[in-house]
Parts: sequence; structure tokens; C-alpha cells
Amino acid sequence: MADDERVELIDLVQANDLTGIRLWLAEHPPYEIADELARMDSHLAIVPFRLLDKDRELEVFEELDPQQQQEILVGLRDSAFRELIEQMDPDDRARLIGEAPAKIATRALAGLSPAERRMTAALLGYPEGAVGRYMTPETVILHRDLLVGRALEVVRAKGAEAETVYTLPVVDDGRRLAGTVQLSDLVVNSADTPLKDVVDVFAPRVRATEPAEDAARLMQEANLVALPVVDSEDRFVGLLTFDDALELIEAADSEDIARQSGASPVTGHYAAVGVLRLARARSVWLLLLIVTSTLTVNVMQGFEGVLKEVTALALFVPMLTGTGGNVGSQSATAIVRALAVGEVRIRDLPRVAWKESRVGLLLGLLLASIALLIGSFLVGGRIAVAVALSVTAVCTWAAIIGSSMPLLARRAGVDPAVVSAPLVSTLVDATGLLIYFSIARAVLGI
Amino acid sequence: MADDERVELIDLVQANDLTGIRLWLAEHPPYEIADELARMDSHLAIVPFRLLDKDRELEVFEELDPQQQQEILVGLRDSAFRELIEQMDPDDRARLIGEAPAKIATRALAGLSPAERRMTAALLGYPEGAVGRYMTPETVILHRDLLVGRALEVVRAKGAEAETVYTLPVVDDGRRLAGTVQLSDLVVNSADTPLKDVVDVFAPRVRATEPAEDAARLMQEANLVALPVVDSEDRFVGLLTFDDALELIEAADSEDIARQSGASPVTGHYAAVGVLRLARARSVWLLLLIVTSTLTVNVMQGFEGVLKEVTALALFVPMLTGTGGNVGSQSATAIVRALAVGEVRIRDLPRVAWKESRVGLLLGLLLASIALLIGSFLVGGRIAVAVALSVTAVCTWAAIIGSSMPLLARRAGVDPAVVSAPLVSTLVDATGLLIYFSIARAVLGI
Repeated sequence: MADDERVELIDLVQANDLTGIRLWLAEHPPYEIADELARMDSHLAIVPFRLLDKDRELEVFEELDPQQQQEILVGLRDSAFRELIEQMDPDDRARLIGEAPAKIATRALAGLSPAERRMTAALLGYPEGAVGRYMTPETVILHRDLLVGRALEVVRAKGAEAETVYTLPVVDDGRRLAGTVQLSDLVVNSADTPLKDVVDVFAPRVRATEPAEDAARLMQEANLVALPVVDSEDRFVGLLTFDDALELIEAADSEDIARQSGASPVTGHYAAVGVLRLARARSVWLLLLIVTSTLTVNVMQGFEGVLKEVTALALFVPMLTGTGGNVGSQSATAIVRALAVGEVRIRDLPRVAWKESRVGLLLGLLLASIALLIGSFLVGGRIAVAVALSVTAVCTWAAIIGSSMPLLARRAGVDPAVVSAPLVSTLVDATGLLIYFSIARAVLGI
Repeated sequence: MADDERVELIDLVQANDLTGIRLWLAEHPPYEIADELARMDSHLAIVPFRLLDKDRELEVFEELDPQQQQEILVGLRDSAFRELIEQMDPDDRARLIGEAPAKIATRALAGLSPAERRMTAALLGYPEGAVGRYMTPETVILHRDLLVGRALEVVRAKGAEAETVYTLPVVDDGRRLAGTVQLSDLVVNSADTPLKDVVDVFAPRVRATEPAEDAARLMQEANLVALPVVDSEDRFVGLLTFDDALELIEAADSEDIARQSGASPVTGHYAAVGVLRLARARSVWLLLLIVTSTLTVNVMQGFEGVLKEVTALALFVPMLTGTGGNVGSQSATAIVRALAVGEVRIRDLPRVAWKESRVGLLLGLLLASIALLIGSFLVGGRIAVAVALSVTAVCTWAAIIGSSMPLLARRAGVDPAVVSAPLVSTLVDATGLLIYFSIARAVLGI
């Protein structure tokens, strides 16, 4: 959206134009400033960061990734460091400390006031990726015996310190969650209405130890601004807010997309990630796949006699493996996404495989007709027939493989997104060649 | 998440167990009911839908896709049809009518009360995909000269009819947007505070004609519960709410993911989409790609003499094209995603291509060493060297192609997501073979 922007912050920083930087900062909202800082190396980013006024400094800081936050912190004086950490939201702080090297983490915890340190330690007690790490404990809690008017007064008195007051947790004497009430309900209803009459006891809730991504998808499905989080005894411990849910979903989608291409997810802004880290994230699967692709060499070797006799068969190998890989990748991608958004479940496996095999057969027939044309024109008659038959068979086979593997992965407890397009292509390559040469041998009678 | 559920609604519907259905419906929230209905054929889905009580009927209906809503509507009696349409939120209704066949659209508009019809017609005036189609016009508007206490009274009086009251638009005499105020600010501040003192005049706003996806991503970046929408003269016309933003982002991500695998996006629940529609969505690119892959046949033909002389060279063709395709797909996927979430811009092209070429070279060297091992073991010496050199060159080349194409597409005004993994693989296949055979000829001296 900002493609036509005239002056870029990084140019001002590189020119060390302090007045220009101050002007630029004054004209941009915190999230855009954070976005620009994320693009820079940390030794550059610290320059405009230090020029921010106190309030905006915190806002910008909270928009950054934990990785970038660490780099900024390293460049700050001790007092500025302490102040920043103390003012952060407890959930953001817990995430930063949880991911930081021990040296920064200790320095951060040591500088905190006792109350803030307690809150942070509690959040850090939850496993990585759990809702507990992402929820905010700073909420206004209402007792269910209150009247609406009194409840509104509680919000008025304590609301300024809470991260959100739109969805309010309602609890019983044992701090057990009775349900939630919307701030709008408190405003719209008359002051003497019992809170019990407006509380939504069926409001969804999650355990603090559950995966944060699942909680975020639940919020999306149920259209919630905030989701109450409880401990194992159903006591209220915090709220997951919609902005954290949005971030979780974006991160989860980015991860799935990266995995789908056979790369490990890389956290952090693309522009700020180094060549080595990118290469490392992509290398694992590539290594595994090139070793697996030895299978294709073996299959080709097994049919070397056939190849020697009819060299023309080799001409269609890239077209055939390419097409099979494409059809298989499409099926795999469709099913991985359907699993991620909850449209398909493990028990649908037979139905899904049956459906995809028909889709694959249809596509195979369509593509085979093109292959027949191309083949007849380039090499003629029987080889073209062998190629066309192989395309049909390979497409059907690829669709079955591509659609069942993600479901089998999920059943085995593995993230279905590891069934990447490259993985499916590589497997289809080897088996597809086997199909091709077998059909060719039969058709050509060799 | 619901993999271990015991009774499934579809089983009850197929058994026509009305009591069982009623019980199941009573025990599940609207979004879960909608999810189950979305999995069924419409002639089945109508059965449980008719058994819902009035309130929940509307909630469930609004959770369905426009496609599914149409199918449900067709199965309803006229009075039920009219009532449902009348009670829908204006933005959901506009989307339904905008996508429905003329017959259903006319019937829906005809049944509306004049006020609701006016609102719907206004939303339908915006182009498809524009924010105007997704915003809600049902809001509480505050005049900027009010005091906080009076503003809260306005919310109290009119809030019940609005879709959201958490972010409130503040306007001047000409209905021009002065800014927004948060409901929490009204609650926390004293009644005699002028609204002017708490209004956020820097709150982001968008034009009703802007793309809805961009607006949703802006809300995500700026952590907004609702985003005010204005017309060309800066007059307030509606609010985009976070639940619509979440849906827009999920839909956009699903589309990108489908395109990335070389398929057109298919709207609607996977389980409810037929084989023919799936095949059609995937066929366009496959046809284009198989025609493009004729290039690989041409390249192979051009080197048929070399192949006849050294058949062993053919053995490594699938491994080489596969590896090149994988590296290219990874680069393309990374850049398409970085573009979608705004981490990379068109003007970054040289920087991105330079970075990816280094990533590709590193990966190429790593994979070449494996290829050298495999090659030496299977065919020995010089061919192995030719394969290893080719792997290095092809990986570097693939990373450059894969990373620049999405940026070039964006510059040409095309959705970068069309630069799918299959497209990159196919292009890399043909050029990669050219590189391979040229290197082989040089190394083997033929």
C-alpha cells in the first residue's frame, strides 16, 4: 500500500538526518514506524527508536517481533531498558523474556517491580505456544452477584489499567468463571439489572495450556473480541484478545505457507532475516528430498535398456514428472488448508481420497489429450499413446497420494503441513516414472 | 478439534432422527452448527435448519457462505424467507444478494422493508471486493460537540440496534469523520469531559471503494476492533468490524494458498464442493503448464544426440528438475507471502533478487555435494561432476527466477500469487535442462 511513499525512513537514517527523522516519526502511526524499523538492521533501527517520545516508544516497541525487541533492548541504556520492560503488557513481556537469551532475560526480570515480576513469571509457567503465553492477566473481573450499575462503576474505576474491557469475565466466589458479559450490555441495560441476567454462561472458554492457534481459530469462528482463559479448575486466569488472535492466525498461516513449500518457518521480517538463516530454514527438506530423489535415478537406471532402445521416451520425462507433481501438489495444498481451517477431519479420509481420485482422473484425461497432441506432433504414434496413458494414470495416482498424505500425517500426530508440495512431487516423480516405463514397455512391446 | 466427537449431526439427519437432531442443536453453539451444515448437501442441511428456533436460525444463517445461504433460502417457505432476509445484518445481506442469481436477489429485495432495502441498495452500489460491501452501516454516530456523559446516553439509547459500539465514529456538522472514540473511553472518563478531548483524530480510516483485504490487513497491523469507512468527501458511511476483517484475511490467505499451488480459489466448504468444480478450478493452470512444458521436450530433443551417446545423463534429469523446482518454489512462496503481509515492496526487487541468489547459491553448493556423492556412486566420475555443477547453477538460477517473478507480477499489476510453485517449477525445468546439457557437453567434451 505504501509503494508510492516519497521519503523512506531508512534513507533519512542513513543520511543521519535527525530533523528529518523526527518529522517522519511525528507524521506516522506507531504500527507504520514499527514496520519500518523491522526492515532495518538493529544498529540503524536504534537511531529513530531513541528519538521517539516515551508514550510512542512503548507502542512502537510492542509492535515489534520478540527478536527485534531484543536487538533494540541491547542498544538501550539501563534506565531506558528497565522503564520499557516495566511498562510492557505482561503477555508481550512474557513472550519477549521467554524467547530472549538468558542474559537479556535475567536483566529484564531483575529490573521489574515485584507485582509485574509475579505476573510475568506466571505467564512464563505455561508451555511455549500455549494460550497462557498470549493471554493478558490485566483484566477487570466482575463478581456475578453485582448489579449492572455497580459493575459499570467497577469498570470505570479499574478499566484504565486493563488491556481490554469489552468482554468482561464474570466469576463466582471461588474465582471460577461463570461466563462473560459485554461492556455494551452494561451500557445498554438499566443500572438495577442483576448481572446474572445479562451474563453469557455459554460463552466459549479455553484452558491456559491449550494451543494458542486453536484458541485463535475458535475466536475467529465464534466472532469473539476476547476469549476467557481458565486453569484446570475452571478458575479465570486471563483473556486472549482479538489482536493477539489476529497475530496468531497470521503467524500460523505464514508457517503453513512456508512448510507447504518445503521450508521451515522463519520468524521475523523478511528484510531483516539474513541469507544464512534463510538457507538453513530451507535446506533440511531440500537435503531430504534430493536423497529421496535418488529413487528416480534408480527407476531410470532400471529401465536404462528401454531408454537405450527408444531414446525418444526420455524426452517426455520432465513433462510427465512435472505434470504429476503439479496435480499432486494441488491436492495436497487443498487438503492441508481444509484441515487447517477445519473443513476436513481425519475420519473423512476415504471420502476425500475417493473425491480427489475422481478429480485426478478428470484432470488426467484432459491433460492426456494435450499430451497426445504434442506427442503425435513431435515423435508420432505409439510413443504418444504411451505418454497419454501415463499422464492419465500418473495424475490420478498423484491426486490420491497428495490428498491422503496430509490426512495420514494428521492421524500420526504430525503437522499435515509437512506434506509439502515438494515432498509430494518427489514421491510422485519416482512412482510416476515406474508407471510410465511400465506402460511404455507394454505399448511398444519391448 | 472435534475429531473425537461421538454423534455427528449428519448421521442423525441421514437417520431422520428429529429428536436426536433437536438435542444436538440445543447442545452446540451457532458457529458449530453452521460448520456442520456447511459439510452437507443442501437438501440435507435444510432439515436441521428448519428445526432451529428463530433467534439461532438467524445466527446460524449469518455464519454460512453466501453460496450455502442461497441453497438454504431456496428450501424455505416465503414467510420464513422474508423474515430471515429482513433480520440479517445489512452487510451480510448485501453480500448474499450481490452473489445470488437474479431470481433469488429480486425475491429477497422485494420482501424487505423500505428502510432495510435502502441500506442494502447503498451497500450494493460499491464494487465487489470493496470495503463498502463489507462494512456495517448500523452504527451509533456521535457529534463531536457532545460531552462524554451525553455521548454515553446516546449509546445507551441507540446501541441495541447497532452491530458494534466499541469503536464509535465522531462526526462534524457535515457528517464528515472527525475521528473515533472508544466505548471504554466514554466509560472511564467523567461525564462532563468534552468528547473533543478523548476523540482520536489520528485513527486510521479508509475509503469505501478501497479493496476490503487491504482494509482488513490495516486493522490487523493497527490492532483495531473496527475501522471507520468514509466516502470520497470524507463523510462517515460505515464501520468495518474485526469479525469481518478476520474472515477477509482467512479468505485472502486461502486464495493465496490455492493460487500458490496453481489452482483457482474455490469458494465454499471443501466437503460441499463437487468434483467437477474442483477439477475446473485446477485445470486452467495445468493446461497452461503442460503446454509450457513442451519446452522441456524441445530442449531434450535438441540434445537427443548427446543423450544417445551418454544415456546415463538421462538418469539425473528428474532429480535435477525436481531440485531446481523445489528451490524455485521456496523462493517464490517466501516472496509472495512477504508481499501479502507487506514485508516486501516492488522497489525492493534488486535487494530481494540479490539476497535470494546468494541463498540459492548456498543451497546449490550444499545439494551439489550430495549429488556428487550419489552420482559418483551410481555412474562415476565425470558425469557426477557435470550433475553437481548443474545442481549449483540451477539452484541459483531457480532462486533468482522464483523471487523476481512475484515482484515483477506485482509491478505489472497482476496478483503476485499467480506466480505459483508449479509455474516456477515448469519454467525452471526447461531452462534448467538447457543449463544441464550445456554443462554436460562441456565437461564430457562431446
